Formats: sequence, structure tokens, C-alpha cells
Amino acid sequence: MTLVGRHLVQPADFSVEEIESVLDLGLRIKEDPSKYIRVAEGKLLATLFYEPSTRTRLSFEAAMNRLGGRIIGFSDPGASSVSKGESLEDTITTVSNYVDVIAMRHPISGAAIQASKACKIPFINAGDGKNQHPTQTLTDLLTIKACRGQLNNLTIAMCGDLKYGRTVHSLAKAMSRYTDTKFIFIAPDELKMPEEVLNDIEGINYEQTASLEEAIGKCDILYMTRVQRERFEDKAQYERLKDTYILDVEKMSKAKENMLVLHPLPRVNEIAVEVDQDPRAKYFEQAQYGMYVRMALIMKLLGIGE
Amino acid sequence: MTLVGRHLVQPADFSVEEIESVLDLGLRIKEDPSKYIRVAEGKLLATLFYEPSTRTRLSFEAAMNRLGGRIIGFSDPGASSVSKGESLEDTITTVSNYVDVIAMRHPISGAAIQASKACKIPFINAGDGKNQHPTQTLTDLLTIKACRGQLNNLTIAMCGDLKYGRTVHSLAKAMSRYTDTKFIFIAPDELKMPEEVLNDIEGINYEQTASLEEAIGKCDILYMTRVQRERFEDKAQYERLKDTYILDVEKMSKAKENMLVLHPLPRVNEIAVEVDQDPRAKYFEQAQYGMYVRMALIMKLLGIGE
Amino acid sequence: MTLVGRHLVQPADFSVEEIESVLDLGLRIKEDPSKYIRVAEGKLLATLFYEPSTRTRLSFEAAMNRLGGRIIGFSDPGASSVSKGESLEDTITTVSNYVDVIAMRHPISGAAIQASKACKIPFINAGDGKNQHPTQTLTDLLTIKACRGQLNNLTIAMCGDLKYGRTVHSLAKAMSRYTDTKFIFIAPDELKMPEEVLNDIEGINYEQTASLEEAIGKCDILYMTRVQRERFEDKAQYERLKDTYILDVEKMSKAKENMLVLHPLPRVNEIAVEVDQDPRAKYFEQAQYGMYVRMALIMKLLGIGE
Repeated sequence: MTLVGRHLVQPADFSVEEIESVLDLGLRIKEDPSKYIRVAEGKLLATLFYEPSTRTRLSFEAAMNRLGGRIIGFSDPGASSVSKGESLEDTITTVSNYVDVIAMRHPISGAAIQASKACKIPFINAGDGKNQHPTQTLTDLLTIKACRGQLNNLTIAMCGDLKYGRTVHSLAKAMSRYTDTKFIFIAPDELKMPEEVLNDIEGINYEQTASLEEAIGKCDILYMTRVQRERFEDKAQYERLKDTYILDVEKMSKAKENMLVLHPLPRVNEIAVEVDQDPRAKYFEQAQYGMYVRMALIMKLLGIGE
Repeated sequence: MTLVGRHLVQPADFSVEEIESVLDLGLRIKEDPSKYIRVAEGKLLATLFYEPSTRTRLSFEAAMNRLGGRIIGFSDPGASSVSKGESLEDTITTVSNYVDVIAMRHPISGAAIQASKACKIPFINAGDGKNQHPTQTLTDLLTIKACRGQLNNLTIAMCGDLKYGRTVHSLAKAMSRYTDTKFIFIAPDELKMPEEVLNDIEGINYEQTASLEEAIGKCDILYMTRVQRERFEDKAQYERLKDTYILDVEKMSKAKENMLVLHPLPRVNEIAVEVDQDPRAKYFEQAQYGMYVRMALIMKLLGIGE
Repeated sequence: MTLVGRHLVQPADFSVEEIESVLDLGLRIKEDPSKYIRVAEGKLLATLFYEPSTRTRLSFEAAMNRLGGRIIGFSDPGASSVSKGESLEDTITTVSNYVDVIAMRHPISGAAIQASKACKIPFINAGDGKNQHPTQTLTDLLTIKACRGQLNNLTIAMCGDLKYGRTVHSLAKAMSRYTDTKFIFIAPDELKMPEEVLNDIEGINYEQTASLEEAIGKCDILYMTRVQRERFEDKAQYERLKDTYILDVEKMSKAKENMLVLHPLPRVNEIAVEVDQDPRAKYFEQAQYGMYVRMALIMKLLGIGE
């Protein structure tokens, strides 16, 4: 299934089948990365980061390097001379005269769709404000597929800040396209999943709860996110609640034996370090799947090496 | 024609024949870049940017990467730890022990010649203050040669800020070395071409005018630059004048059918976006020629791959 | 001698024989670097610089590039988004899922050992605060071995700020492991070699003096460091002393004909520029040995290409 020349601004830009083809290639890469160390020889990726996001940038740059391709770009707003008084469209047009594919991070929601429209080469949204971060969603999907063998028939619990979390919104929408998905949304009242996301996944079975402890035994995937003090108007409420959203060995003892714990990282204290040793903790492996899925995506968009 | 081991501090460092050999190689690269993706394997370029200039840096880094070479360097003043209390000469000597060729950007006029004297490997000035930016001139020359087939017998109009524009000064001097060049300098009184440049091109046919509209029909090349409000003492004068130096579809209708519009970029508003669709608008293509001419220059200085 | 999978946090982590094997490989690389331009193909180095150190970073990046490997990383504290609220251990674990070897620079003493404990791939300390900088020591050792043919039976004078100089402390300890080493420590009272270092090299023959002029004729290696005004409580004392610690042509005339002058660089004014022409001045060549020894180290830790 070809994706040559396509843009990826949001996960829904790709059909389920198209996503499947990216994930399958990601799995093949993981099996033997040494097969792919020259497939992008002579190809250039631009990483245009209008706000710093070291983790995402390193993942893209590791991916392109592991394919034998090359990278140019900038990594922070101080490098904005590229766009001094210049329109985003002009910058994209200029850079697309240098390279074969662009990955852009931008602090403003909607910048990605604007840039992609001016871009005559494949364009990847590496996060635009609070809007979309589609390669994180691909990372989550590949991790689930790799560790569970499938994306259908899964009960996915999402825990923590479901109100502001771009990651969980995207993943909920993406998983709602698979057969017999069930969701459990675990959050305090202040941070419940927004109505618009619930509308987007209409027809899908879900429940809402405030108790991680009660929900943990019922899910196949537990997707943890951070609960930030700043989100609470009532700080006393935060203090009462915060520990109930920290995943520790005791809570893990109530989970299924083959449950997976995912987290988009960075982790602060919402998962106790003691959990890292649990074989069900997949969040660091997830970072590696993020690199593999970006390798697969770049290959697909450039039409190389399969 | 060999240029192995040479420095490029200003365009006049190379003879017309030497420039010709760089441009010819640039054209051959553009015809089939895939032939050159390994010629610089094992070679290193240092990009030492003592002031940010993302566009120029990306062009050099794209060029070296497209040759299969590698890059080390720094991209902004914050990286100046390399020179903390250290002389520029010592930094250059140290870096030249790591790499095969150096491209340096520096905010101080004259820094390039100073650095080149200490440099035992090929040195390229990537812009030193208001002084010189020779690879921009090579870019302009390659674009003209590629799009017109020749550099002789051309009428070149330069429009906008001719007083402070480093780019137009260098290009005027460079074009004055070709047969039957004619110039039209289009600028308001405040921003006329300086006497010293007019002296440098002595013997060459030129006229001066304040009207883009009158001049546009007579030229083969229209080189646009930005007219900045800050340059005018009399701001009312600026307001009266500014629109007359904006190139739009209406003014383009008066130009020759094979005229070329060039611009060093970034463009702000001095060329209306509607002009981008005109096949005579070559400024984005020009950015790509900038990459090809830098590829050719690096190959020539290193004596590789021809 | 295999060093595959090892960490290098401090010079003493390697035995004399292990260091010897790195230096020997470094010498072989210097003889013909072109043999090694593909040995690290498909391998990635992360350069994680939590404080800027352009010189050290460029040396590591030149080394990895000259081996045909690739680099990802960050170069300054502004890039610290990687660790925003995240533990150093988590950052290292994540990055080690992307790359094959990590070089880390950190402003805090002890950060290197902490990071190395979390690191499942080879870890290189590229300087942690005032603590250790083992690749500088390897650089010094390789320079001495290359220029003198051996590391035994040498009289090494160290001159300048011996109190605060991390470099001279490490080199003193490292050289004390070789046969018949003798030290001459040349420093004003304020900046004498600390007791703890003297204890570390117990059993080794050393003398202390305040006079460079008297000592210079007796040594095989003169290791210069900078004397900083800020180190002196009595500024008048600094003014009286400073010139006596500046190496110039006159003082060089009293040195042995095969003495070597080393300096970790950057040099400020403690070595007069006139000395650069003296064939005994090896400090710029030393920078190149730094690149070669890092190439050797990376090869050894990855077990490639020998």
C-alpha cells in the first residue's frame, strides 16, 4: 500500500489499512534493523522545530539516521531567523527545495495544516500546539500491536489528565476505529475526557470512573498520563487525589497478567520507579517503537526500501 | 580547472574562468544529483556560525549531506564557548584539525579574511557582517546561467535598497566582469547605489532611476530586494514610495516574456505572493541553485568526485 | 583486548593494559584514517551536553562521523526539555533505546556515575563538573605516546593552576601508573597541587617549585595550564607572578630539544603565539589526537572494525 508523497497532519489522514501498512513495516524493521541501514541513502529529512521538543526531535533524527538518510534543521525558537518576517509558507517552500521530507514542530495549533498546504514534498506534523501529534499515536498503536499481536478486542484504560492530554484524545479516536474496542476513562472530575472526544468515539463502549484501583483489573492496556497540580483550582482537592493516580507495585498486583502499561513520557512521579522492573511496564520499550514507526513512516512517504 | 585547497572570502578571489568551472559543475550536479551522493564520503565540513543564519546554514549542510559528506559545527552565539577567551585564529586552527573544509559566518566585517589566514584547509566565507557573502553571489550567477544559458549580454535591473544591500553590491561587481553587461539601478534617492560600487564597475553601462514601473520592460533580470522602513529618515517619504517598489502581477505584465525575477530571500512583502505562480519568478528555484553551487564549490575545494 | 559494553566514567575505570589497547588503536587510526570511514556504519552516538562545551562536542562528533557512524543529541542547557521534570536515569534509559553509545557532559560532579548506572549501552563521561574528564586524559596520553614513543621513564612538568585544574589531576594520576614517571609541579603557593592528588600518586618521585624558568630544562613534557586572575585573593601577587607562568620563546630556549609542550586548550595568553612555530609545541596536534583517541574508544566500546 503506497503512501508516497502524502502528508501526515493528523492520524485520521491515514485510513486504518494505511496505518496498518506503516505498523507492519515498523514490526519488520524491529525484527532486523540492520536490513534498513542504507535504504534512505541520498535522502534528506528537515527537522524544523519552532519549539524545543528534544525527545521527539531525537526520535525522528535517530529514525532517519538508522535508515542511512541525513538530517538538516533547527531545534529551538532562537533559530527562528529562518522565518524572520518570512511567512511559514515561504520557509516551507524554501526548505522543500533542499530536502526530501519535512518534520515540523510548532507551538501554534493549526500551523501544521497551514505548512502542509505549501509543501510539495511529504510533510509530517511532529506536534502543533495542543492540536495533533500523529507520530505519538502511531507509536502507541505499534507498541500495542507489537506487544498484544492485534489492535482489536482490547479494553483500554486511560488514566490521569484526560481533559488536556493531546495524546489520549488522539489515541482514543484512533482506537475507536478498531473492532470491539472498549474504553475506561479514569480521571478526577476536573480532568474528565472532554465532550468533543466522547462525541468523536460515539458508538464505542466506554465507562468513566475516578478510581484507578477499581479499574485496573479490567483493562488490557493501561495508558498513564501525568496529573499536574496546576490543573486544579482546588489545591486541597489535588492533594487528596494525587496519590490515587500514582501507579505502584501494589496497584499493579490487581492488574491482569498480560496487561500493558504505556506512557508517552516523560514520566514524573505518576508511575513509581519500582514498577519499571515489572515486565508489563512497556513505556521505555514504547520509546523504541516510536523510533521504528518513524522509520517506517519515512520509508512509506518516500517510497523507499521495501 | 583546479581549486583544491583554495579559500573563498570574496567573489573576486576566483577568476571568471574559475567561477565558470564551479558553475558548470553546479549545472552538471543539478542534471543528476544521484551521481554525487557518495563523492564526499569520509569528508567533514565544519559550519561555524557565530551568528544565526538558518537559511545559509541549512543550504551548506544540505549541500554537504547530498555529497555524502558529514557536518559538525555550531549554529548560534550561545555556542561561543568554542572561542571563550580564545582567539579566532586558535579556534580555526583547532577545528581544522578535525575537518576537511570550514564554512564560517561571523557578525564582524573582516573576520573572514582574518580566519582564512590562519586556516590550513579550504575556508569558505558564509557571510562576514556587512562585508561579503560570496556563496550568495555564486548562487545568483548559477541561477542566471542556468535559466538564461549565459552570463554575457544581459541587462540586469536591481531594485530596492541598493545602498545597504551586500547582495546587490557583490552581484554588480561580479556581473561587471562579463561581456556587454548593462545595469539599471532602481532605488529611491535615500537608497541609491553607493559611489564606491559605481566606481568598482567603471566602464560598464548603467542607468539609475527611481521607477520600477518604467524600468521593468527593459531588463533581462530583475533582482528584487527589500525596502525597509527603518532606512528612511522621512517616514512620510517611505509611505509614499513603498508600494512603487512592490512587484505585483500588474507590473509583471510590462516585463519581457523571458525576464527572470530573482530575490536572495527571505521575501517579506516586496514581491506579492500572486507573482509566485508566474513562471518568470525564479526566487525559490534560486534557493535550490544555492545548494547545487555549494555542492560544486565544496567538491572543487576538496578536489573530489569530478 | 575487549572493552565491549564498558562505561568510561573516570580514567581508572580502565586498566593500564586496557588504556594501552585504546592508545594503540588510536595510533593505527592516525596512520591511515581512510581505513575506518565505514566501520561504524549503522551505529548511533548520542551527545548529551547538559552544558555547552563546543570543543569537546565537536571532537566527539568528528570522531563518530570519521568512523561512518551517526550522531543525535543536544548541545546546551536550553535543550533541557529532554529532562524537564524527568530524572536523569529516565532520560538515559530513553535515549539508550535510540542509540548504541552515549557521551554525556554535565555541570554536576557525580552526574556521570549516576547516569552510567542507568545505562544499558556503553556510556562515556565527557566531563562532569569539576570531577572527571577521562577522554581528555586519554588525549594527553595518546599525544605523549605518539610523540615520544612510550609512556615510561618520563619527567612531566605541570605548570600553572594545579589546584583547580581537573585536567592535571587526572593526568598526574594516570601517569603515576607508568614506570619511572617523575613529576615537577610548577605553581605559585595559591595554586599548588592539592594534598589529595599528592596522596594519590604516593610513591612517585616529584618535586614542587614556583619557577617555570628553573624547571623547564629538566622535563620531557611541559603541560601548561592557565593562571586565572580570579584565583588570587591578593591581586598584587597575581600581577607580580603572571608573567613568570607565560611560556615564550625565551623560556623555550632553555628546554630540552625533544621536550613536548602540551595544553588542553583553549589557550588564552599563557603560551605566547610566537611559540606556535616551535616544533616542540604540540597543543594543536594534541586536539587531533583527541579526535583519534575518541574514534578508538568508540570502536572499542562497540566492538567494531578492528
